[in-house]
Amino acid sequence: MKKIALTGIKPTGILHIGNYFGAIKPALELADDYDARYFIADYHALNTVKNPAELSALIRQVAAGWLAAGLDPEKVIFYRQSSVPETFELTTALMAFTSKGLMNRAHAYKAAVQDNTEKNDDPDAGINMGLFTYPVLMAADIILFDSDVVPVGKDQVQHVEMAQDIAQAINFNYKAEILKVPQAAVQESVAVVPGLDGRKMSKSYGNTIPLFAPEKELRKLIMRIVTNSQAVEEPKDPEVSQIYLLYKLFASAEEQQSLGARYRAGGMGWGEAKEELFRVVNRELTPIRNRFNEIMSNPKGLDETLAQGAEKARAIASNTVTRLRKAIGIDL
Amino acid sequence: MKKIALTGIKPTGILHIGNYFGAIKPALELADDYDARYFIADYHALNTVKNPAELSALIRQVAAGWLAAGLDPEKVIFYRQSSVPETFELTTALMAFTSKGLMNRAHAYKAAVQDNTEKNDDPDAGINMGLFTYPVLMAADIILFDSDVVPVGKDQVQHVEMAQDIAQAINFNYKAEILKVPQAAVQESVAVVPGLDGRKMSKSYGNTIPLFAPEKELRKLIMRIVTNSQAVEEPKDPEVSQIYLLYKLFASAEEQQSLGARYRAGGMGWGEAKEELFRVVNRELTPIRNRFNEIMSNPKGLDETLAQGAEKARAIASNTVTRLRKAIGIDL
Repeated sequence: MKKIALTGIKPTGILHIGNYFGAIKPALELADDYDARYFIADYHALNTVKNPAELSALIRQVAAGWLAAGLDPEKVIFYRQSSVPETFELTTALMAFTSKGLMNRAHAYKAAVQDNTEKNDDPDAGINMGLFTYPVLMAADIILFDSDVVPVGKDQVQHVEMAQDIAQAINFNYKAEILKVPQAAVQESVAVVPGLDGRKMSKSYGNTIPLFAPEKELRKLIMRIVTNSQAVEEPKDPEVSQIYLLYKLFASAEEQQSLGARYRAGGMGWGEAKEELFRVVNRELTPIRNRFNEIMSNPKGLDETLAQGAEKARAIASNTVTRLRKAIGIDL
Repeated sequence: MKKIALTGIKPTGILHIGNYFGAIKPALELADDYDARYFIADYHALNTVKNPAELSALIRQVAAGWLAAGLDPEKVIFYRQSSVPETFELTTALMAFTSKGLMNRAHAYKAAVQDNTEKNDDPDAGINMGLFTYPVLMAADIILFDSDVVPVGKDQVQHVEMAQDIAQAINFNYKAEILKVPQAAVQESVAVVPGLDGRKMSKSYGNTIPLFAPEKELRKLIMRIVTNSQAVEEPKDPEVSQIYLLYKLFASAEEQQSLGARYRAGGMGWGEAKEELFRVVNRELTPIRNRFNEIMSNPKGLDETLAQGAEKARAIASNTVTRLRKAIGIDL
């Protein structure tokens, strides 16, 4: 039997090619080796997205994006967190076994406190309980599905460790393996995708290329990539060019070699390099964009796909909660 | 239409006559004027009761106790918190609108921090997230049922105020009356019941008379009430006698007058006063004890009663959660 891997997807922004290479592609590859489960963490998103139209649009766009990028809902389980209410009962139960000190040490919370302290503000200013209790909800997301493995970036290992702590506290108290203790699978070599301004592509820098930008917008954005003032005739080093670094993500080995040679030879301007980049990006993204638009044109079908996933997910989730209720002594 | 009043019952100890006069009787009287709802707060109890046999026994004993004391499940809604999972989804949603600062100021949490500080311990030592987030879960308990009124002792007004804050934050954000803002009904003159040692009867003092103690045990306990060393022949002041103060709770006006006169006349020993106290206590408690034993002898029937209550409760609860999901934008 394959091990179970769980990936959470927070619908807090429209998908860009940084997400595509840094998160979506590596996560989808898990489906080859694992019994892979993916969920849209919509209640996590509520901590920051408090506009209902925005939140519902993001949920659908992000779900459609993952499906368009290759998530196969027949092969994996794909659901919305909010469609699996067992998550929230488990969260409540976990609270009773989570020390407050553990939460005080959570990275995201500590960073927010530090921000406030630097501004001479109250340490907890603007911090809501959704942020503070985030690791417990995340532990529930993980534990609910008997996850063996949670693929995470280095900065998120702590979340899995906290889920371990909490699951172990419950197993220890009830002297039985009630909950599976998950393991982190640290993704060391996740692609860093350069953004339009040369920094890492990130929503918070406003330097992204949306994954589903229409062709015209895609070209415009690529033409906006910041370059240096080297003249056309000058030979250029491809490995320090954001254009080339992006190009490598989309081009074949031959294409990479050929464009690299043109860089080094001189006589090629940035405009030409950008045109070549646009060509390969658009080549890869066009079929994904078309699938995305097709899915988005039928929101009922999308909702149905997510509902079917939720049904599969709840069958597993209710087992876990029933097991825990029995252990706790409230399953009269 | 009657207003809705909600009473939560935490199953953390077996019921005693302090609970009977201080909590059960006043709460049951609400059913005359309100659409009254009562719930066994079993997930609240989990914060302190981590032994499954103890917790399930307490849930049944406390539920049976309220039924024996006169709660009419046909007339009011009576359910277990854990049977209404909408509670936990609502809790998760409320977290996103609850400032952490609000929780920092909760009385129970502050008292625990003060205890730790006095012991030169880490301020959060031994404090779990169940305790820290208790007011959010309680707000969900209240708000889920569109409660108009929550009858509370003075020390619990803060909980209702927090529920108000949170409900208002959500209504404000979504610019609509999504959630009903509850009001506290402060019970000013709740009977203080003296315990065996003269202090207020309380589980934590170990000075209680269990509500369902068998007759023999009941007599034994009453005979253990602490008295002073006044001689039999001395006249005694009934109003400073724990025996007489307890007697007043159970005796008719005539009986009170008559025993009071015997106190003041002198010539009556404490043993006689205790016998007279036992007689009236046992007279009132015998039918309740019999009903309790009858209910406890049929746990399936009791569970069925609670399950029927939960069904009624969930019909209301799911309305509230659906309303909120729509407002939030996750009701695709």
